[in-house]
Amino acid sequence: MSTSEKIVLAYSGGLDTSVAIGWIAEATGAEVIAVAVDVGQGGEDLDTIRKRALACGAVEAYVADARDEFADEYCLPALKANALYMDRYPLVSALSRPVIVKHLVKAAQQHGAGTVAHGCTGKGNDQVRFEVGITALAPELKCIAPVRDLALTRDKAIDFAERNNLPIETTKKNPYSIDQNVWGRAIETGFLEDIWNPPIEDIYTYTQDPAEPRDPDEVVITFDEGRPVAIDGETVTMLQAIEILNQRAGAHGVGRLDMVEDRLVGIKSREVYEAPGAIALIAAHQELENVTVERELARFKRTVDQRWGELVYDGLWSSPLKQALDGFIDDANAHVSGEIRMVLHGGRAVVTGRRSGQSLYDFGLATYDTGDTFDQSHAKGFIELFGMSTKLAAVRNQKNG
Amino acid sequence: MSTSEKIVLAYSGGLDTSVAIGWIAEATGAEVIAVAVDVGQGGEDLDTIRKRALACGAVEAYVADARDEFADEYCLPALKANALYMDRYPLVSALSRPVIVKHLVKAAQQHGAGTVAHGCTGKGNDQVRFEVGITALAPELKCIAPVRDLALTRDKAIDFAERNNLPIETTKKNPYSIDQNVWGRAIETGFLEDIWNPPIEDIYTYTQDPAEPRDPDEVVITFDEGRPVAIDGETVTMLQAIEILNQRAGAHGVGRLDMVEDRLVGIKSREVYEAPGAIALIAAHQELENVTVERELARFKRTVDQRWGELVYDGLWSSPLKQALDGFIDDANAHVSGEIRMVLHGGRAVVTGRRSGQSLYDFGLATYDTGDTFDQSHAKGFIELFGMSTKLAAVRNQKNG
Amino acid sequence: MSTSEKIVLAYSGGLDTSVAIGWIAEATGAEVIAVAVDVGQGGEDLDTIRKRALACGAVEAYVADARDEFADEYCLPALKANALYMDRYPLVSALSRPVIVKHLVKAAQQHGAGTVAHGCTGKGNDQVRFEVGITALAPELKCIAPVRDLALTRDKAIDFAERNNLPIETTKKNPYSIDQNVWGRAIETGFLEDIWNPPIEDIYTYTQDPAEPRDPDEVVITFDEGRPVAIDGETVTMLQAIEILNQRAGAHGVGRLDMVEDRLVGIKSREVYEAPGAIALIAAHQELENVTVERELARFKRTVDQRWGELVYDGLWSSPLKQALDGFIDDANAHVSGEIRMVLHGGRAVVTGRRSGQSLYDFGLATYDTGDTFDQSHAKGFIELFGMSTKLAAVRNQKNG
Amino acid sequence: MSTSEKIVLAYSGGLDTSVAIGWIAEATGAEVIAVAVDVGQGGEDLDTIRKRALACGAVEAYVADARDEFADEYCLPALKANALYMDRYPLVSALSRPVIVKHLVKAAQQHGAGTVAHGCTGKGNDQVRFEVGITALAPELKCIAPVRDLALTRDKAIDFAERNNLPIETTKKNPYSIDQNVWGRAIETGFLEDIWNPPIEDIYTYTQDPAEPRDPDEVVITFDEGRPVAIDGETVTMLQAIEILNQRAGAHGVGRLDMVEDRLVGIKSREVYEAPGAIALIAAHQELENVTVERELARFKRTVDQRWGELVYDGLWSSPLKQALDGFIDDANAHVSGEIRMVLHGGRAVVTGRRSGQSLYDFGLATYDTGDTFDQSHAKGFIELFGMSTKLAAVRNQKNG
Repeated sequence: MSTSEKIVLAYSGGLDTSVAIGWIAEATGAEVIAVAVDVGQGGEDLDTIRKRALACGAVEAYVADARDEFADEYCLPALKANALYMDRYPLVSALSRPVIVKHLVKAAQQHGAGTVAHGCTGKGNDQVRFEVGITALAPELKCIAPVRDLALTRDKAIDFAERNNLPIETTKKNPYSIDQNVWGRAIETGFLEDIWNPPIEDIYTYTQDPAEPRDPDEVVITFDEGRPVAIDGETVTMLQAIEILNQRAGAHGVGRLDMVEDRLVGIKSREVYEAPGAIALIAAHQELENVTVERELARFKRTVDQRWGELVYDGLWSSPLKQALDGFIDDANAHVSGEIRMVLHGGRAVVTGRRSGQSLYDFGLATYDTGDTFDQSHAKGFIELFGMSTKLAAVRNQKNG
Repeated sequence: MSTSEKIVLAYSGGLDTSVAIGWIAEATGAEVIAVAVDVGQGGEDLDTIRKRALACGAVEAYVADARDEFADEYCLPALKANALYMDRYPLVSALSRPVIVKHLVKAAQQHGAGTVAHGCTGKGNDQVRFEVGITALAPELKCIAPVRDLALTRDKAIDFAERNNLPIETTKKNPYSIDQNVWGRAIETGFLEDIWNPPIEDIYTYTQDPAEPRDPDEVVITFDEGRPVAIDGETVTMLQAIEILNQRAGAHGVGRLDMVEDRLVGIKSREVYEAPGAIALIAAHQELENVTVERELARFKRTVDQRWGELVYDGLWSSPLKQALDGFIDDANAHVSGEIRMVLHGGRAVVTGRRSGQSLYDFGLATYDTGDTFDQSHAKGFIELFGMSTKLAAVRNQKNG
Repeated sequence: MSTSEKIVLAYSGGLDTSVAIGWIAEATGAEVIAVAVDVGQGGEDLDTIRKRALACGAVEAYVADARDEFADEYCLPALKANALYMDRYPLVSALSRPVIVKHLVKAAQQHGAGTVAHGCTGKGNDQVRFEVGITALAPELKCIAPVRDLALTRDKAIDFAERNNLPIETTKKNPYSIDQNVWGRAIETGFLEDIWNPPIEDIYTYTQDPAEPRDPDEVVITFDEGRPVAIDGETVTMLQAIEILNQRAGAHGVGRLDMVEDRLVGIKSREVYEAPGAIALIAAHQELENVTVERELARFKRTVDQRWGELVYDGLWSSPLKQALDGFIDDANAHVSGEIRMVLHGGRAVVTGRRSGQSLYDFGLATYDTGDTFDQSHAKGFIELFGMSTKLAAVRNQKNG
Repeated sequence: MSTSEKIVLAYSGGLDTSVAIGWIAEATGAEVIAVAVDVGQGGEDLDTIRKRALACGAVEAYVADARDEFADEYCLPALKANALYMDRYPLVSALSRPVIVKHLVKAAQQHGAGTVAHGCTGKGNDQVRFEVGITALAPELKCIAPVRDLALTRDKAIDFAERNNLPIETTKKNPYSIDQNVWGRAIETGFLEDIWNPPIEDIYTYTQDPAEPRDPDEVVITFDEGRPVAIDGETVTMLQAIEILNQRAGAHGVGRLDMVEDRLVGIKSREVYEAPGAIALIAAHQELENVTVERELARFKRTVDQRWGELVYDGLWSSPLKQALDGFIDDANAHVSGEIRMVLHGGRAVVTGRRSGQSLYDFGLATYDTGDTFDQSHAKGFIELFGMSTKLAAVRNQKNG
């Protein structure tokens, strides 16, 4: 590899990827371009991170503000799909990988790099999301994962950082492995690997303890074609909607999740998440669908939503099937407009009212009081033919004893 | 119709079915046999109800204690299917209809009745569940619904009761229409027909206000092949498991539901439910499945579970498809054995620990600490071939611009 | 009903609908507007039919040439969905109903009619397709079916025609009940109602006897995004593509079908069809999908295609779910472009070659000869992780004996 | 590896696996036990094959007659599932791998071998079927594939055979790569890797040219719960049923398939098959299902059948999901009993009659002639409520312009 060979590295600012800059350069002779992507993970100032990359030996360092893009093009489709992997997990990390991938590929193309590097290990989902994501956008790019492919263990990383005097703390290991963005936060840690152990309060930062007594909060979310456009009447962007609900739902402990999860690589793992905004928005969106989406469309959409979630979890964001499902999901959201009133309290986001110009709820047909317009004379014929095939099977079975 | 013609009536003890005894007799000339089925609905003493039926003119009155049967043969399959119609409703009424139907058909066959009568209106799901359920067990039986087919309106019922001096209160209308059994409770009422109105505390009886401050309760549920067999180490029947959790989860306000729902007859209706035991058991069962069921089986089971719930909701309990799905669901539960620890508090039933001799969670493969047995060298090849078809599509699309 | 009340009648020119003109007028006092829709059914001249309607008492008579519209907007979507109900039936009648409905509704709106009438009986699928189709386009319109709702039996029809001297033959009953259009032909008749009886040669008109010895025909069909655009290099419209293949495939007996079918009204019926063009086009289209559609998209599309076919069979052409599925199917066809070579012979349409600029078939990856570019070193890791969840289940089961 | 280490080799008698005996021994120092499994592949005498293995250096050689087992436990479940991967391929090779695996594992356990070897390359499906199949039955066993893992190329194999004077022909390469068993035959060859090239007559051995004029053959197949039990009234085993229909349907050219197929490893390949018995049996079985299986069960079974076929194709025969689907499929076949009459001619197996004591076809309900028992008065109410949700959506959409 000539000295002009370039590698784009997905840079987080932490020990592993800071060391990876030099480690990759030593192993391959390539120049490393560090790219950090802001998906609302908060924490350190991104310019600080950018400078650290340069100090660690990157030939260039780059910070992309992808927060609105992430909210609009990744979180919103997930909301429209009510995306909950295994009926629980709102795809926090799984959603951020494709937008990071997009910026890595863009950087590689701008700088003429032939390889993209990432900091994942060889036993998680994220390596698949990075590498299949990259191949789907730029099949000519190669991928490398120093931890997995270049034997960059934690001990070697600390040793390398100290030996090379890198501007990164190596003294104490964070007990938690965290991935966070505006859609939520994922927590892994040693004691949770015993699946009988409960999570402790200490691990949460997006949510307050739901058991603390406090007054409930009431919020009205306005949707337009599946997209939240106002909160309590104030117009919001998708990013603002998530941020506001992270605050307000998080203050009531909404969105904590603790589950055993099926990884793509075939093993089960224990995962703890907090995603107050995502969980509140999905609950509101689902109920607005109940009001505005026709029954057979709603029934089939559950199958589509499930598959969508599996595909995104499995790293197939840019796959042909995922794209075709998006068309279906957008179409199904065409009438998901209206208002949902919700109470946030004690860890729960509970819908208490819905109002929509696109409603399929017909008071006249539904009421048992004065004003009932439902013609009950249709029922007998309906039941007879609806049950006909079951009846014929019963007659047959009776005859055959 | 000769005087010896007999009709079996599903009898609840309330105004409508009490009047129906005489109303049917007048309209058809048949003798009416009243059958009440105890599915854990509580309320009035069943012997009192039986005597009222006789006092209202029934030639025979019959009370069937179906509580254990309902729990074992109807609620347990629903639990194994994690049955939540529209991802929310645990099928409270939908589950009780088939066991009531079974006892109605049995009574009809014992007494030589050719017709079964029920108290449903012509715009709900229950008429379908009764009539398709009956035809599936005894296709030769006819069905009649006095409210729908014999013009038995509320006003006429009050008038009839007063005119005939029936031993049933007619003075004040209960503001709520309630259906309840051990698996849960359904509430409909006029002001909730405005879907913007929130439920009020007054309508609930199975659950306490979740917002009240109180100390959390911790419970350990032991499952054997999907069936709860012990609570906190004490052996329980299915019925006891539900009853105990109705108490304990109900005391913390678990299991309140408020939703707009798609009825089989094509309209949307607003429904409020409370089902503390059902919701707690399903949450526990789902998480034990996460630990013990292989990924692809778990993914497909979601589709099966959804269809199972739709069929039961739609009154097709005894349909050939429902029966074939039961076989799949039982098979999928063969390893769902172990213990789930759960905290009940503030309206939430939260799993905090799982322990199982049938666990597929492998600490060695999952851990990031010492003892990791996962061979990360497999990942590269896996990713390459797993992503191959997506990559080839990307190459093709790139080539075609 | 005032004399100015108008009813639009779906008019075929046959005995039943000719009589229905006067029958409806007598029963309702309304003026009848007869609308015939040309969907390529052939047979009588349509102007003759139009004049007959007037002679039978219609106040207006109207012939709509919907052949291209039917081919482009109804047959083409079916082709893109490889639509075969129960894996066999290409939805011949089911497809034509919605386009007829569209023209009936248009006529009703133009003439201010409040009711649409059709000639279906009360036990088939077509009544549902007409009436749900009409309600989906114009929910304010009422529907009436004289045969079902106004007791217009065959005997009464003959009597009415003779009594009123209608210009329509009543002497001999056609032994076959036929529905045909450019997409195919459906045949019902008394002796086929015994499902052990084989069809006889006599009933077919679109197809020659496949058992006759003749020389094979070879055809090359060019598709563009799922649409056939050329045959043997000659540009064709969708209508022409079907017509040409009806001729050429029909000459070799392609597309005869004989099956027991599940009707929407809950019964099973014996149906015989011939659809040479449809079957040949679907076979070609499916194989071009095999070449150009990515695996996971292709797998999920089978589920979508099946549901699409069920919905159209069940009369839900204009339902929200059908429309959302169309979006998915169009997207999945975006790359279905290229050429299929097919041999037509002996009742079979057999693909023998495929060629596409959108092909995902990669010779280098597929070949076992010189030029193999497949890197076999990936396989071991792939198999290990692909099989991991199955392996862990095996280990668990072994441990638990 | 000590000299007492043992490896069980899946032995075919051909050049590759004959050389593999010594090749493996040299590479690993292990003793090789050759196991050939008779799945009805025909060809060379199996005792000859066994002796060749010994002459090539196997310490033991073993021939298992698995023909009835293969037919009863592998082909029959496939028939019950109407298993056609991509709606075409009856899983010929995919079905035989699990039974071969079963015998390899049995041999390994009997002889205390810790490793199983097979002759597959690294780019096909069969390596996955062998290795995942083995891990599912005996997760402690290791797998090795000399062609893929020990660099045993064709050239090296010829060289090794000649150098070691092995009793196996090396002079000319068979132009075709064949895999065959009683359920069918798969053919790959260089010129077919150009997917525009048609197959030539030369490659087929199970089927005669369908274009040859000959008299049709008529056959009646009797099924009992999905299993063929008699042909033309003569009792048969499953194996005999397949063999007889291979003869009779093969004589008329039934069951030739030519398709582009999605491999599990992510590439598309061109495959040609012939499977006369399988295709004839599946056609008959499908139609008997049409007659005896209730509609909703039949509709869902298509989804189950598709997934079953994908799982078996993908090498997941022994996976938990496949096993749970088997339960569903068996249940769905409980009433699939009766007779199917079929004409075999010109490459087609066409059902012409069905007769069953389990039939759900009701002549009285189906007929349009005298004897019609269908009560058409039910239709209006059915249509109204069946179309209600579509109508409400139409009203809503109209209102919102």
